Amino acid sequence: MNPSFIVVEGLEGAGKSSVIELIRAFLVAKGHDVECTREPGGTPMAEAIRECVKQTWDEVVTQETELLLMYAARSQLVENKIKPAMAKNKWVIGDRHDMSSVAYQGGGRGIDISVLNTLRKMTLGSFEPDLVLYLDVEPSVGLARARGRGELDRIELSGLSFFENARRTYKKLVQDSSKAVEIDAMQEMNVVHSDVRAALENWYAKGCLATNNVEIKRVDQ
Amino acid sequence: MNPSFIVVEGLEGAGKSSVIELIRAFLVAKGHDVECTREPGGTPMAEAIRECVKQTWDEVVTQETELLLMYAARSQLVENKIKPAMAKNKWVIGDRHDMSSVAYQGGGRGIDISVLNTLRKMTLGSFEPDLVLYLDVEPSVGLARARGRGELDRIELSGLSFFENARRTYKKLVQDSSKAVEIDAMQEMNVVHSDVRAALENWYAKGCLATNNVEIKRVDQ
Repeated sequence: MNPSFIVVEGLEGAGKSSVIELIRAFLVAKGHDVECTREPGGTPMAEAIRECVKQTWDEVVTQETELLLMYAARSQLVENKIKPAMAKNKWVIGDRHDMSSVAYQGGGRGIDISVLNTLRKMTLGSFEPDLVLYLDVEPSVGLARARGRGELDRIELSGLSFFENARRTYKKLVQDSSKAVEIDAMQEMNVVHSDVRAALENWYAKGCLATNNVEIKRVDQ
Repeated sequence: MNPSFIVVEGLEGAGKSSVIELIRAFLVAKGHDVECTREPGGTPMAEAIRECVKQTWDEVVTQETELLLMYAARSQLVENKIKPAMAKNKWVIGDRHDMSSVAYQGGGRGIDISVLNTLRKMTLGSFEPDLVLYLDVEPSVGLARARGRGELDRIELSGLSFFENARRTYKKLVQDSSKAVEIDAMQEMNVVHSDVRAALENWYAKGCLATNNVEIKRVDQ
């Protein structure tokens, strides 16, 4: 069984962290080695880029800069962490990936989809998640949860309509993708987790359909 | 007379700094306010991105990351410094600009020109220099000069063939551009400076042909 790359997507406060822990436990119980990553970030350079894009500056951060930094961090993460982990037969769980850029910088900021497609093709080629779990939450609810756990960063301080546009884009992307599943994250946490577990079991039972053809370097080779 | 954006381009050790000082003095003598910038960098966020792209990391810096960070820094500089300066009727001198990306990341690293064109269009639109002075130097000579003034950064440590490809691209770009002038920077410095002065006088006498249509906000408005 080839390792898969599973991504958890959703707005701020959707409950990604606890779902990631659930997926990790699910995969470990199946006997897999698991590595968790986050975006932007996940390598020393990508974390420096994360700090750069998330902090508040005394200058306008252009929407183009925000987008370019997201893909720069993504390129570092995929090449230096995700692909090497999968080549060692590790299953990778990502806290956000490319769908975040399409939702936030595309849907939220209004950057043209053709530009996003060019950047994706350049930085990722045909590499993509094998499963995306999108946790759907109303922006006002999610942001209230996020606010409850501390100070908001520069992007989290964007207006409500930004997050409403991001959510609309997320829902459309999930609808159009055969690899994405929408989970209603407005429900009680135990119901959300039960839905996630069901989606995972269903996907796993179908053989996961790992598509990235990472060449696995086994120890005995 | 509308303000112009003048860019000095060339490999490491081509002598850009002293030429920029010469241009600054030339413009001041003509009665203009002048602002000098550098790339990558020139705003607090762009300088943070410069540090990120130039330093040596314990991980591979992908050529895509390098390219994306250059355009992220450029977007910040153009929107937050160059355009606002020109709107205040200041003439701007740039130590590097877009041509560097085409030469280094395009010619040097081999990134497809169509990707560069997409990034340029997204981040700069139709904004471009009114004059580019390209200081041509053999890579071995330029790098020896750069080495003489201290430690080389990550990009300067790229192999000689990288710089040979960048130089070839620079020469082609200058040949194809009506706004760029090649200066032989292998000559004695006083001859180089005399050539630069002649190019400037010639350009200025023709009316500079400022093309960026920056709306100048005059004090009395």
